[in-house]
Amino acid sequence: MSDERHDDTAALVLFSGGQDSTTCLAWALTRFRRVETLGFSYGQRHVIELDCRAALLDGLASLKPDWAGRLGDHHTLDVPTLGELSETALTRDVAIAIGADGLPNTFVPGRNLVFLTFAAALAYRRGIGHIVAGMCETDYSGYPDCRNDTLQALAKALVLGMARPFELHTPLMWRDKAQTWALAHELGGEPLVDLIREHSHTCYLGERGERHPWGYGCGSCPACVLRARGWEGYLAGSTGSTPASP
Amino acid sequence: MSDERHDDTAALVLFSGGQDSTTCLAWALTRFRRVETLGFSYGQRHVIELDCRAALLDGLASLKPDWAGRLGDHHTLDVPTLGELSETALTRDVAIAIGADGLPNTFVPGRNLVFLTFAAALAYRRGIGHIVAGMCETDYSGYPDCRNDTLQALAKALVLGMARPFELHTPLMWRDKAQTWALAHELGGEPLVDLIREHSHTCYLGERGERHPWGYGCGSCPACVLRARGWEGYLAGSTGSTPASP
Repeated sequence: MSDERHDDTAALVLFSGGQDSTTCLAWALTRFRRVETLGFSYGQRHVIELDCRAALLDGLASLKPDWAGRLGDHHTLDVPTLGELSETALTRDVAIAIGADGLPNTFVPGRNLVFLTFAAALAYRRGIGHIVAGMCETDYSGYPDCRNDTLQALAKALVLGMARPFELHTPLMWRDKAQTWALAHELGGEPLVDLIREHSHTCYLGERGERHPWGYGCGSCPACVLRARGWEGYLAGSTGSTPASP
Repeated sequence: MSDERHDDTAALVLFSGGQDSTTCLAWALTRFRRVETLGFSYGQRHVIELDCRAALLDGLASLKPDWAGRLGDHHTLDVPTLGELSETALTRDVAIAIGADGLPNTFVPGRNLVFLTFAAALAYRRGIGHIVAGMCETDYSGYPDCRNDTLQALAKALVLGMARPFELHTPLMWRDKAQTWALAHELGGEPLVDLIREHSHTCYLGERGERHPWGYGCGSCPACVLRARGWEGYLAGSTGSTPASP
């Protein structure tokens, strides 16, 4: 396979419109000359997060002239297959049940593997050498497709399977939510922190709800609780200095 | 993650209705107590192969009573995202061109990685422990997502990413097409060879065309040429004895 279109100064960021992926996008904008973004539509309840992207992109572009010049195309891919897979247990002879893992058997495993494989296919087609994604072991250890070991194994399969030397970056892997707020501050100061508070979406229920100190959301789903705790931790300075960027 | 529904005597076979996947299905029917199949619809020009599946499944079930008892559900998943990825180069600012690799840049790389990841997600949901697929290095070395190294790396990512001890089997990996015909003979004798000749579909153009000694097809596309050569090699006995099954 030829690498003639492989641009080692370009990155594709998995960008859903949430706190984590917005922070990853800012991280990429400080490091790569051309940054494109990719979101997925797969019937998620919190599809509102995709609508948040425009305001976030505008905000990022207006924060720093450098960033405005680096932001390239924005892509959205529909992945209805994930919904089809969920229906399999509903329509066939498998009873719906909660497994010992606490997840209903309508849960589709390996979602992040699917997303990253499609991201690599798009990166291949766009000649982009780096993929940036917000997976994190620290706060989400229940999901094996967020773990570093899994993503390192997948990265190897993607490099071999597409014969391109992609690099997969997961700058949030070892950060908790407080440290993610701190990283945003490091990358873009108070204006970036304020942009993420105001315009990123985290709530699983897809509610914008009332305005909390940490942003909008129902305030009680696990994602909102995590975001709120992270914000409090960040304000309290409990994270000390942020870890060195990988 | 819990494995309480993990059945180590069950297999999911990627079954497109072609020669290779039909041979893999027969291979699985000799080894596993329950065998389900999965086909993908992704806008392929040779979508006719999916229509061939019913006759092949009926044929396999009537060949041996054992096989009839083992054949379980048949699944088809739509993956329109692959088509969307193809359109990206057509609709955005990348010119369509043939790369130095001889492939147009509308080609979607990593298709087999996508298929196997969805297969693993379905296997997880169905409690199936084994995945069987017809990828082969011998005749398709141009596609890096068919190579054994790639698939072993992906298998590791799938096991880690879904926290299930899936085994991925690729019984055709080191066989050429003549040896694949020989394997069919070993598994089901002349009746299986005849079933595959008559009802499996290989032609890239999606043509059933006239009846050739090796089956139907346009007779001139690369897939037909490969199938015809393999058939001639099989008849000539040029493969000697078939390799031991892995």
